[in-house]
Amino acid sequence: MFTFYYAPNTCALAPHIALEQCGADYQAVRVDFAQNQQGSPEYLLLNSKGRVPTLLTPRGVLTETPAILQFICQTFAQSGLAPLDDPFELARMNAFNSYLCSTVHVAHAHRRRGSRWADDPAAIEHMKNKVPENMAACFDLIEREYLQGPWVLGEKYSVSDMYLFTLAQWLEADGVDIRRFPKVAHHRLKMAQDPVVARVVLAEQSVA
Amino acid sequence: MFTFYYAPNTCALAPHIALEQCGADYQAVRVDFAQNQQGSPEYLLLNSKGRVPTLLTPRGVLTETPAILQFICQTFAQSGLAPLDDPFELARMNAFNSYLCSTVHVAHAHRRRGSRWADDPAAIEHMKNKVPENMAACFDLIEREYLQGPWVLGEKYSVSDMYLFTLAQWLEADGVDIRRFPKVAHHRLKMAQDPVVARVVLAEQSVA
Repeated sequence: MFTFYYAPNTCALAPHIALEQCGADYQAVRVDFAQNQQGSPEYLLLNSKGRVPTLLTPRGVLTETPAILQFICQTFAQSGLAPLDDPFELARMNAFNSYLCSTVHVAHAHRRRGSRWADDPAAIEHMKNKVPENMAACFDLIEREYLQGPWVLGEKYSVSDMYLFTLAQWLEADGVDIRRFPKVAHHRLKMAQDPVVARVVLAEQSVA
Repeated sequence: MFTFYYAPNTCALAPHIALEQCGADYQAVRVDFAQNQQGSPEYLLLNSKGRVPTLLTPRGVLTETPAILQFICQTFAQSGLAPLDDPFELARMNAFNSYLCSTVHVAHAHRRRGSRWADDPAAIEHMKNKVPENMAACFDLIEREYLQGPWVLGEKYSVSDMYLFTLAQWLEADGVDIRRFPKVAHHRLKMAQDPVVARVVLAEQSVA
């Protein structure tokens, strides 16, 4: 039994979909960002970074999306959501997930979280203005190189598809027209139509 | 046989140490950042992100430090540089590596790479000014929570130690006094005295 802490419209969507796809026994707990619940003493005891996702397991707490994703894949190996038997293919999957985490997510974060990296309001505004250009550059690379089709790793569906879908959800708000990237757009549409993905998206968007 | 592309004073040091520690058959190739070699057509064919590290394997190219680190651990499993038989412990290792990659390295990059996230010179200066505060906050968390001692994962030496050592090298230039973090300072000193680590640091710093 796991407890999974998430907030809507965050990268927590990817491991949330993975847990659901694997048929994991888990309870999803919404962290209310509007109330700054991620900064509450209770939550900080679980995850002192004050971020989502957090996965509470019988062995203890796990954080960081790429690590949680591989953990789910290994725990539910029969689901086949990662090329666990091939270290090179697994590294390709993890390289993609790491790129999403450290470059794409970071590019996105400069739109609403600029205060992490500068205090000056004008500087924060300048960061915000560059987000469309940076997100477009990231998705151009994904379109040209990473997304082999039909899935990120080619013929094999994996947690990288869930993670790409999650970040591709942010494009419009980040000022990028997804139609510039036909493969990404097609991938996002196909993912949105998947019954498991649709169920999790609906659950996250429904107010309790 | 691997070919490993690195530049001195970058995160490539961590997988470089790992390759050496595992006794891997590899050739290290220095990428000359002063000459912008990472932006040359030849290098971009290998790694279109124009970054280091890049690991060329018989199966193809791998990028992204956390992915390369786990790949080395799996390829040289007998070296015991990761808790490969325990998915939860492995996830803890990967969560730490992911934190270094997506939060600590990103905090550091705002000192010299601010132009990635804003065009305005004053905004770039504001980012630079916040680097000491952000790097200190990251290392405070590492000191209090992550670094169990003597190694990151406790009794077991792992690639996370190599990665932490690599980023801890940057503290002084980032305006942070490492003596504020006694466990990190002790860890860095112990790592620097390791013969394998010392050999790789010397090789990276020696001009060909």
